Amino acid sequence: MERQKLILDCDPGHDDAVAILLAGRAPGLELLGITVTAGNQTLEKTAQNALRVVQWLGLDTPVYAGCDRPLVRDKIVAGNIHGETGLDGPVFPSLERTLRPEHAVQYLIRTLLASEGDITVVTTGPMTNLAMALRLEPRIAEKIRRIVLMGGSYTNGNVTPAAEFNILADPEAAHICFSAGRPVSMIGLDVTRKVLCLPEIVERMARVNTGASRLFVDLMGHFCRTQKEVFGWDGAPLHDPVTVASLLDPDLVRFKPMNVRIDLRSEQSYGRTNCDYFGYLGLPATADVAVDIDVPRFWDIVEEALRRYE
Amino acid sequence: MERQKLILDCDPGHDDAVAILLAGRAPGLELLGITVTAGNQTLEKTAQNALRVVQWLGLDTPVYAGCDRPLVRDKIVAGNIHGETGLDGPVFPSLERTLRPEHAVQYLIRTLLASEGDITVVTTGPMTNLAMALRLEPRIAEKIRRIVLMGGSYTNGNVTPAAEFNILADPEAAHICFSAGRPVSMIGLDVTRKVLCLPEIVERMARVNTGASRLFVDLMGHFCRTQKEVFGWDGAPLHDPVTVASLLDPDLVRFKPMNVRIDLRSEQSYGRTNCDYFGYLGLPATADVAVDIDVPRFWDIVEEALRRYE
Amino acid sequence: MERQKLILDCDPGHDDAVAILLAGRAPGLELLGITVTAGNQTLEKTAQNALRVVQWLGLDTPVYAGCDRPLVRDKIVAGNIHGETGLDGPVFPSLERTLRPEHAVQYLIRTLLASEGDITVVTTGPMTNLAMALRLEPRIAEKIRRIVLMGGSYTNGNVTPAAEFNILADPEAAHICFSAGRPVSMIGLDVTRKVLCLPEIVERMARVNTGASRLFVDLMGHFCRTQKEVFGWDGAPLHDPVTVASLLDPDLVRFKPMNVRIDLRSEQSYGRTNCDYFGYLGLPATADVAVDIDVPRFWDIVEEALRRYE
Amino acid sequence: MERQKLILDCDPGHDDAVAILLAGRAPGLELLGITVTAGNQTLEKTAQNALRVVQWLGLDTPVYAGCDRPLVRDKIVAGNIHGETGLDGPVFPSLERTLRPEHAVQYLIRTLLASEGDITVVTTGPMTNLAMALRLEPRIAEKIRRIVLMGGSYTNGNVTPAAEFNILADPEAAHICFSAGRPVSMIGLDVTRKVLCLPEIVERMARVNTGASRLFVDLMGHFCRTQKEVFGWDGAPLHDPVTVASLLDPDLVRFKPMNVRIDLRSEQSYGRTNCDYFGYLGLPATADVAVDIDVPRFWDIVEEALRRYE
Repeated sequence: MERQKLILDCDPGHDDAVAILLAGRAPGLELLGITVTAGNQTLEKTAQNALRVVQWLGLDTPVYAGCDRPLVRDKIVAGNIHGETGLDGPVFPSLERTLRPEHAVQYLIRTLLASEGDITVVTTGPMTNLAMALRLEPRIAEKIRRIVLMGGSYTNGNVTPAAEFNILADPEAAHICFSAGRPVSMIGLDVTRKVLCLPEIVERMARVNTGASRLFVDLMGHFCRTQKEVFGWDGAPLHDPVTVASLLDPDLVRFKPMNVRIDLRSEQSYGRTNCDYFGYLGLPATADVAVDIDVPRFWDIVEEALRRYE
Repeated sequence: MERQKLILDCDPGHDDAVAILLAGRAPGLELLGITVTAGNQTLEKTAQNALRVVQWLGLDTPVYAGCDRPLVRDKIVAGNIHGETGLDGPVFPSLERTLRPEHAVQYLIRTLLASEGDITVVTTGPMTNLAMALRLEPRIAEKIRRIVLMGGSYTNGNVTPAAEFNILADPEAAHICFSAGRPVSMIGLDVTRKVLCLPEIVERMARVNTGASRLFVDLMGHFCRTQKEVFGWDGAPLHDPVTVASLLDPDLVRFKPMNVRIDLRSEQSYGRTNCDYFGYLGLPATADVAVDIDVPRFWDIVEEALRRYE
Repeated sequence: MERQKLILDCDPGHDDAVAILLAGRAPGLELLGITVTAGNQTLEKTAQNALRVVQWLGLDTPVYAGCDRPLVRDKIVAGNIHGETGLDGPVFPSLERTLRPEHAVQYLIRTLLASEGDITVVTTGPMTNLAMALRLEPRIAEKIRRIVLMGGSYTNGNVTPAAEFNILADPEAAHICFSAGRPVSMIGLDVTRKVLCLPEIVERMARVNTGASRLFVDLMGHFCRTQKEVFGWDGAPLHDPVTVASLLDPDLVRFKPMNVRIDLRSEQSYGRTNCDYFGYLGLPATADVAVDIDVPRFWDIVEEALRRYE
Repeated sequence: MERQKLILDCDPGHDDAVAILLAGRAPGLELLGITVTAGNQTLEKTAQNALRVVQWLGLDTPVYAGCDRPLVRDKIVAGNIHGETGLDGPVFPSLERTLRPEHAVQYLIRTLLASEGDITVVTTGPMTNLAMALRLEPRIAEKIRRIVLMGGSYTNGNVTPAAEFNILADPEAAHICFSAGRPVSMIGLDVTRKVLCLPEIVERMARVNTGASRLFVDLMGHFCRTQKEVFGWDGAPLHDPVTVASLLDPDLVRFKPMNVRIDLRSEQSYGRTNCDYFGYLGLPATADVAVDIDVPRFWDIVEEALRRYE
């Protein structure tokens, strides 16, 4: 079976870390590189966090730092969820890995241009890096196999009543990526909120007892606590890893094609992904939007991933 | 037991007709008057429809015509759902009832000013009449006991991905009513979509075999068909009557206080009721928003109402 | 010569007071009534001010109070320009005149409906009253001969860089009036800023030495001072009276037909009158917009008016 | 006397061509490079046009092609003004010059980073290239001596009633550049419309009789004709060259510091530069905005420039 090539563009972030974990040693995937953007925390922190996770897991995936702020709007971060470091919880050993010197946007352009159109770009943070690459070198658009993103919602948001964090943090970048003319698979809160990492899940993963599972348990300790504080939930929704998991099992997430427009004009609804679930507007579908997920299967995929590390 | 006084402001419309039916002879309610606005169809048609329903049911409730267009935006109607007449389906006898000569806005002002602050205003259409009354005579605000409306959604809309019909048809009017400083109970699509009038419900109501039940059955015949065509649903959501039913049984609908802001600035998200379900914004609650309903209890209330007519 | 019938809708306000003065005894005009709205100050104050001016001038024009707040937006006033009373400067005798009991909106509806379509409505404040009348009784639209307003600008504003006070104070009302399908003559800042009441003008009018000229001089004393403080100008632009003066001499103001749209959606440009001076948009003209004025002729008109009072 | 270093970012375009001409051999300037963006025409055409002008004038300035579309919005061009080629009028010899292979954004980043903070960036088109450079490498901001742009207006626009072409063609890019924290000198339509190239000016420049003057005359032939057709003017406003001329003579243009915000949210007023001329908003000044120009001096500068070429 052919391995799917992917680049993971992320802003770790607890759930981004789990996405890296899922992608790192999956037999069906070839993780070409990790590009990092500001988002859950500042770029300096998210880039360090990506390196920490890669080092902890013993992966040799190259990591590239990208944009330190959104395209147009002022920067926002999610310190209330991910803590001061952006990856509060685990105690990481001192960092030996280093960032590649190339800018993430250049890496995306170079790698995609040189490819045979077989690379999927997975984004689990604000879509700034990919948007910048698309504008700096428009010819990469036709080289992207598919864009799979965690972001948005067709119901309601998690930062404002209208908007989800990854899209709200750079709505203009999301608009550019959604308009690039390539297949887009949007996995939004409507589905990722169903993937609640409850205490019994943490216990189950603890029993795997690998380095990866210890990382998972330490990450979830912090993440579950802040989700409880901010949203009142008993578990933490594992938003970002659903993207990678959906590549590992094409039946995991059910998608529905919809016309999606991102509100760039409203103060109140800024960053809302207006998804035409029922087709009211009579406009062509522009993305496959996740509408359901096989939750038990998702946790099996996570457990399988944890077992692949020592 | 004290009867709750109410004025019903509506735009019949199939589900408005059922709201009239519920309010007409309920022992716990005193339906002072019906005011009509353009909405599901033009004012001429919705006013005629209100009279038709009142006449069919043998009610002596006065009916007042109000505004024939929204405050600021251009008029929209919902002919695809409610048909050419706005109440397609039943064959009504020729109309003997007539409209009161007073304008609905004047009726609202006069009645509320003269009241002891004990009148609930229920709106099941665009909120134009009440908004106009509030602006023409601001002193009525303190006389309104409560505003109970069918409208909006904290998830997604039924005309655009962002907006529900009653709010979208006059977002500025809704903003005025929500900002009037009075208790607002918003019953939106999030709850009314659960009240699906399925074929077995129609059969059950048919067995009641009163004039009212025959009206109900004839209305639902058309309404269910267009909901099937437009949304693909097997039954019709009975949006509007949930307002009146919630007055009849205070435990029927579960509400949660939320800050609600209506998007007046966006083209895409125009008319969206941005309800801060999770309290992200730290702003004071401005409305009680319906979050759940006891569906079986609702159908019991409808059946009880049908039995009150010959 | 036939006298033009007009209703003056205003929010006095120093320059509104001069508009009343111009209209009060002009041989070519028949001032049917004065309607008042909140604007330069609260309704309570602007209504009192209208009565004060009418009493000072010995006019028997009826005065009607109207709306105390704008249609949709929150109320703003211009206390920095017109002072605490809204008409700071003159010492008025105690007030003997009283408001008519009818609401200004009802007066507008009643008078226009009963007319032969020969009444011009002149607005020199926020257009709330006329907009409310148009929505409450749409049939008055065809009865309005012409709407002549002071408001807007095709260059820049006087409250924000984008917007002029009368429009910004109720942009939705202005939109309703501009969209009523009647001839609209918009006299904006582009022209009224040319009518600077400099010290030599005040001296000239002082020499007229009538009760009206003393009122003019006292009003201008305050008005010129605040304009100096706020805008740094040596004289006060007499915005509002240009409307009435343009009725007295059809050659006074030069108009150009333009498509005018009012920005209701932007935070920054809210209330801007986007006037298509050069016809870029290819849309039909919707208003005659003032582009030039014969300033010396204007001051002659003012002097002539002052001489008509004792 | 020290020569001012500049990079000219442009989209030739007739008036851009004159800006190149002014900058090319000015003793006080050192034109390091020309970067090109889409704007008056597509990038392919504007890049060719820049080369054609450089070749005609015998300059050895390197030319770099940049972004072929705006950051966020859809592309607009000004074919009605600048013709099918973007530089209709002159008959250019076949092109021997070629573009440098480096992307304009990379050239800007590399050159600015390597500089001592003494380079002025002059933009006479949409500000896409500079905005992209600022986002891709934020450290260049502190290296920019000053941004001098032709664009915007504090009165009204030349494409819509609200907006000027260069800003409207990429409002988000302009916002990024205005927010970069560097001195910005905005030369808008308010001043450039005063620089009308009338027939007598064309005749005067024809008498210079150099290769450059023949190019000028041929360019103006087309440019004056389309300005006449589109705006009804007898001469063509030479917008873009005012930027370069203002560097050559610091007394040419009078500037006033203002707070400038670009409307990114409105459909109607999109791209408007809301310049707080009178300081209403009490916000800090963010740009020096041109408010007047010494027109005869400008034409002298043009004539002097034409004489510098054979």
